[in-house]
Amino acid sequence: MSKPQPIDEAHASPEVRAVFDDIKALRNVEDVNNFWKYLARDPVGLKRTWESVKQVMSPGALSPLVKEMIYVAVSVTNNCDYCIASHTAAARKAGMTDAMFAELMGVIGMANETNRLANGYRVPIDPAFE
Amino acid sequence: MSKPQPIDEAHASPEVRAVFDDIKALRNVEDVNNFWKYLARDPVGLKRTWESVKQVMSPGALSPLVKEMIYVAVSVTNNCDYCIASHTAAARKAGMTDAMFAELMGVIGMANETNRLANGYRVPIDPAFE
Amino acid sequence: MSKPQPIDEAHASPEVRAVFDDIKALRNVEDVNNFWKYLARDPVGLKRTWESVKQVMSPGALSPLVKEMIYVAVSVTNNCDYCIASHTAAARKAGMTDAMFAELMGVIGMANETNRLANGYRVPIDPAFE
Amino acid sequence: MSKPQPIDEAHASPEVRAVFDDIKALRNVEDVNNFWKYLARDPVGLKRTWESVKQVMSPGALSPLVKEMIYVAVSVTNNCDYCIASHTAAARKAGMTDAMFAELMGVIGMANETNRLANGYRVPIDPAFE
Amino acid sequence: MSKPQPIDEAHASPEVRAVFDDIKALRNVEDVNNFWKYLARDPVGLKRTWESVKQVMSPGALSPLVKEMIYVAVSVTNNCDYCIASHTAAARKAGMTDAMFAELMGVIGMANETNRLANGYRVPIDPAFE
Amino acid sequence: MSKPQPIDEAHASPEVRAVFDDIKALRNVEDVNNFWKYLARDPVGLKRTWESVKQVMSPGALSPLVKEMIYVAVSVTNNCDYCIASHTAAARKAGMTDAMFAELMGVIGMANETNRLANGYRVPIDPAFE
Repeated sequence: MSKPQPIDEAHASPEVRAVFDDIKALRNVEDVNNFWKYLARDPVGLKRTWESVKQVMSPGALSPLVKEMIYVAVSVTNNCDYCIASHTAAARKAGMTDAMFAELMGVIGMANETNRLANGYRVPIDPAFE
Repeated sequence: MSKPQPIDEAHASPEVRAVFDDIKALRNVEDVNNFWKYLARDPVGLKRTWESVKQVMSPGALSPLVKEMIYVAVSVTNNCDYCIASHTAAARKAGMTDAMFAELMGVIGMANETNRLANGYRVPIDPAFE
Repeated sequence: MSKPQPIDEAHASPEVRAVFDDIKALRNVEDVNNFWKYLARDPVGLKRTWESVKQVMSPGALSPLVKEMIYVAVSVTNNCDYCIASHTAAARKAGMTDAMFAELMGVIGMANETNRLANGYRVPIDPAFE
Repeated sequence: MSKPQPIDEAHASPEVRAVFDDIKALRNVEDVNNFWKYLARDPVGLKRTWESVKQVMSPGALSPLVKEMIYVAVSVTNNCDYCIASHTAAARKAGMTDAMFAELMGVIGMANETNRLANGYRVPIDPAFE
Repeated sequence: MSKPQPIDEAHASPEVRAVFDDIKALRNVEDVNNFWKYLARDPVGLKRTWESVKQVMSPGALSPLVKEMIYVAVSVTNNCDYCIASHTAAARKAGMTDAMFAELMGVIGMANETNRLANGYRVPIDPAFE
Repeated sequence: MSKPQPIDEAHASPEVRAVFDDIKALRNVEDVNNFWKYLARDPVGLKRTWESVKQVMSPGALSPLVKEMIYVAVSVTNNCDYCIASHTAAARKAGMTDAMFAELMGVIGMANETNRLANGYRVPIDPAFE
């Protein structure tokens, strides 16, 4: 069978369970998202990915809300259905209002448009940006 | 000659000059970026694009800094050299610090990675996100 | 009706049937995948695509397994659901183990991340690579 | 040395030269573009690619001009500098005017924008399109 | 609830209804597509996007059919399911025949292939295109 | 100044130098690539990225050569100039022959083509792959 299958908590090895527990504790949730259950097929990759996500998404010079909106911008540009759904939800949880969402979509759309105009018109970089 | 050529102010038609003047006034700059000079080959498209960018990038529920960082996130994901250069500069001008830039890059990188993991593992969307 | 429709064997023209027969014989399967049934709407394109795929995917300096994993890497990066599903299955058939799949996903994810870091940091190519 | 190197006519094998000759005859040009000279490192791939391009780009239900503009649309969306340059030139040669180019860029930009809005708003396909 | 929801005509504000009415009148349809109903969550963005689409897609140097096929080329390259479905339907309505559709797909496929060959072989732009 | 600047060894902090030393030791090279010198602006990100790359690219169920070719496949599909150059060099170093490179490019090109054909024809996933 070629389709990847998830691993839920009841069947998780101790190392997978440790990651699941860390996710649940940090995010204060009852269960982990499907993403982590599928990644659990590769316990080493699961741990590496989670440790990296935890470090990258922690509050710093940018707020969790801003970070989640950036995540949405990338996911929308890549057309990753799962990631759009999960990170829009995370951004909402971090405080994204309807007005913020509408502006986020507006900027993403405009950037994707002007990116292609710059490509198509073969615009050279201004000396000031070098 | 197939390569698009820019139009500078000295050779701009009144309608193009009006857009250039509006850009310079709003941004308080002496000259417009190459992007606008190339787009000026299509005066109707120039005006439409500028009016849309002006509306989308104006301060609202999201700050100009956040909007510029979202623009960078899209441009980096699309690998638009011109747009990366110009919008990183704009984000700097809007207040992006070195620490913010580093975190922005971190989130963009991580999102591009996990987007593909979600694709490859064919992760179904959690019911909670539907 | 704008949605493309498949052509199955029972309704295939002789030229389409010839391609279907070649696919089935070479792959030792009872029926062709949906991909070929949809492409069959364009018999010339069907034949051209199949002849190219047959040439490209035949054993050579790279093994069929390695070729299928490269196919998966491209399909995951492009987020082509159909192609991820069909080429993951083909890679499994060619011998891809669970451990190989996990490492394949790991490399794909990491490459997508560092591709964007190289873009965002505007890293110039080292002279050694020129 | 890892960087691919071109093969020019003077050093081409008979099989490569045969492809070069066919390109020059069909396009009525004195020399082939760099693309073909680099691909010539793989004579089998060179021949396959040229035969496919020749078939796909020949006049049919769509004119060469329309086909070249579609090629530009894909190349701009993928941000392939080489392909944007060469296929814009080919479209010009096939009759693309300044006004057509401006409209082509406008449609490409708008499509890239609305593609992302459809993604971000998670718009379900209308029953009429199924 | 994080998933965006559509707004149908019965619940639309006057400004949204005005856009819906303009779409229906111009396209001579009874109802607007889902795309517009979802975008209606952002009345300002809805109006801006519609005005831009209306301007870009109106007949000009390029026919509506050619513009719709370019839209399909971008949407297929970006793998936007919604946009592929809706713009293939629009192209059909504008006169795209089965033969045109087959050729359109052929060109899109070939362009995506050669775009990557140009990348991978690191082909420099011919002086003639500069 | 908005353009990112590299950090070379002479000006590296102890934590950056430690990463540089680890890279040089593991790869048995005299100096690190530009990629790492630019990433060094973010010492935490540098360390995280290097640790992840080291883990992902180490020999396992897949050989270093296969992993580097997968890296090239992703980089070519994303059109990351820097990454194409550096990972083609790495693949060469790991044993990629001219014949392997030609086949790698052939598979990448074909996969990018058929990915789009599957999108455009809206091919549903075969039940066997679910």
